[in-house]
Amino acid sequence: MNIVQSVEEMQQIMQDLRGKGKSIGFVPTMGFLHEGHLQLLRNCKAENEISVLSIFVNPLQFGPNEDFDSYPRDIERDEALARNAGVDILFYPSKDEMYKNNMSTRITVVDRVDVLCGEKRKGHFDGVATVLIKLFNIVTPHKAYFGMKDAQQVAVVDGLIKDFNIPVELVPVETIREEDGLAKSSRNVYLSNLERKEAPHLYQSLMCGKQAIEDGERSVGIIKQAVSKHILEHTSGKIDYVEVLSYPELEQINEIQEKVIIALAVKFTKARLIDNITLVVPNN
Amino acid sequence: MNIVQSVEEMQQIMQDLRGKGKSIGFVPTMGFLHEGHLQLLRNCKAENEISVLSIFVNPLQFGPNEDFDSYPRDIERDEALARNAGVDILFYPSKDEMYKNNMSTRITVVDRVDVLCGEKRKGHFDGVATVLIKLFNIVTPHKAYFGMKDAQQVAVVDGLIKDFNIPVELVPVETIREEDGLAKSSRNVYLSNLERKEAPHLYQSLMCGKQAIEDGERSVGIIKQAVSKHILEHTSGKIDYVEVLSYPELEQINEIQEKVIIALAVKFTKARLIDNITLVVPNN
Repeated sequence: MNIVQSVEEMQQIMQDLRGKGKSIGFVPTMGFLHEGHLQLLRNCKAENEISVLSIFVNPLQFGPNEDFDSYPRDIERDEALARNAGVDILFYPSKDEMYKNNMSTRITVVDRVDVLCGEKRKGHFDGVATVLIKLFNIVTPHKAYFGMKDAQQVAVVDGLIKDFNIPVELVPVETIREEDGLAKSSRNVYLSNLERKEAPHLYQSLMCGKQAIEDGERSVGIIKQAVSKHILEHTSGKIDYVEVLSYPELEQINEIQEKVIIALAVKFTKARLIDNITLVVPNN
Repeated sequence: MNIVQSVEEMQQIMQDLRGKGKSIGFVPTMGFLHEGHLQLLRNCKAENEISVLSIFVNPLQFGPNEDFDSYPRDIERDEALARNAGVDILFYPSKDEMYKNNMSTRITVVDRVDVLCGEKRKGHFDGVATVLIKLFNIVTPHKAYFGMKDAQQVAVVDGLIKDFNIPVELVPVETIREEDGLAKSSRNVYLSNLERKEAPHLYQSLMCGKQAIEDGERSVGIIKQAVSKHILEHTSGKIDYVEVLSYPELEQINEIQEKVIIALAVKFTKARLIDNITLVVPNN
């Protein structure tokens, strides 16, 4: 595995690889790799000749009250995991290397951001979009892999790629789950024993919503109610939001149509969990 | 010459050419080609295996009071000129093809814009930056050619490329001049006979500034005064601005340092002319 820290060197390497006609897959991360990242890497590895992993804790996507400095980092462990996953090139630039000069251009994401988790993280996706445009230009991948656990990020990246005709294929990767359906997350360890037993009901609640749609229900209000009811009846968590939106546009809708996302965030004592499913609605 | 109107087809063609290791040069324009564009194409042709010209009147870079609809267009003439200049691929997309969806991302250029001509064209360079990110992603050139006549645009593109690590080399091309020094411009025909005789003094005034710097003058105020004095004494034009700024940062300075631009805009009866020179300041 080649570890590259310089943008210029990376661009040279990637240009050579593309010139040789190699197919290039890319998994951008902030490091501290978990099972979700490894699944992205597995898919990337299976579908491309060259797999590139980037590890960069991007200061631009942290709010003023968020924890850029204390964000967990463990590059030795990440390096071992990356090697093990068959990564060919690990791109690991410093903050100064990525933001050499003051940015004279600003990116603002105006759609798909003022809902779900984005509503409370003003500017977060501006930082995500900025670093991704940079990373796509540095890595020049054919395919880029993002986990559907953060479905809003996938929607924003989808918009970004279309807006700027970025020559990369977005590959959304399904959320990895425990056997009981709970979405894997590094935050699950913060659940109490009781909460851990309740938590699979979050996925169950999404399944309730899905079942209602498949049974012909088209009212977004009624579906949200069914999902919320299941959560409240089967968990001690506090609902932060339950939303049913068009996907990937993430627009508020009254009636179910074409492709939708059912998304939720629920607060337990020490952990706030999110989950979602997207589904293509069968024609009536 | 291949004429391409579809973004998708263009991306396919360019990917094939890059895969074959061809060097690609790119001249982005809004059409209605003049001598300046042809010079860009000559340089592009000389330095690359494949020369791409784009013609796209970009609505995003016109202000609400500017003349998008009446902007001059003559695609047949442009096509003939492009063929004659040895262009390999003419990319000529429609407005709908370039802006298929509502943009969910907005680009704002925050530096290098509130000076010179940009000061009165709020948002203009946001539109320029947006379409250039798109065009660079569609054409994926190795080199892109821009005329130094619009030095501020070159400075903004320089910032854009650095900000987003765009893998393209910016090639600034020197302003083409008449034998008497007047910068070529389609607006020169609007000068009266007398004004046409005075107009070479704009370039002469820049030369005065240059001479002063070479003679050791370091005060920006004094240099601006010398340039303005020459214009006022030798022409009937009204000075819009005479500026001496750092280049390419376009920052206000008091003392001459490293690389600077001397730029001017002067209004004649029916034509507003601009001109500039950049110079690397000799060490004392």
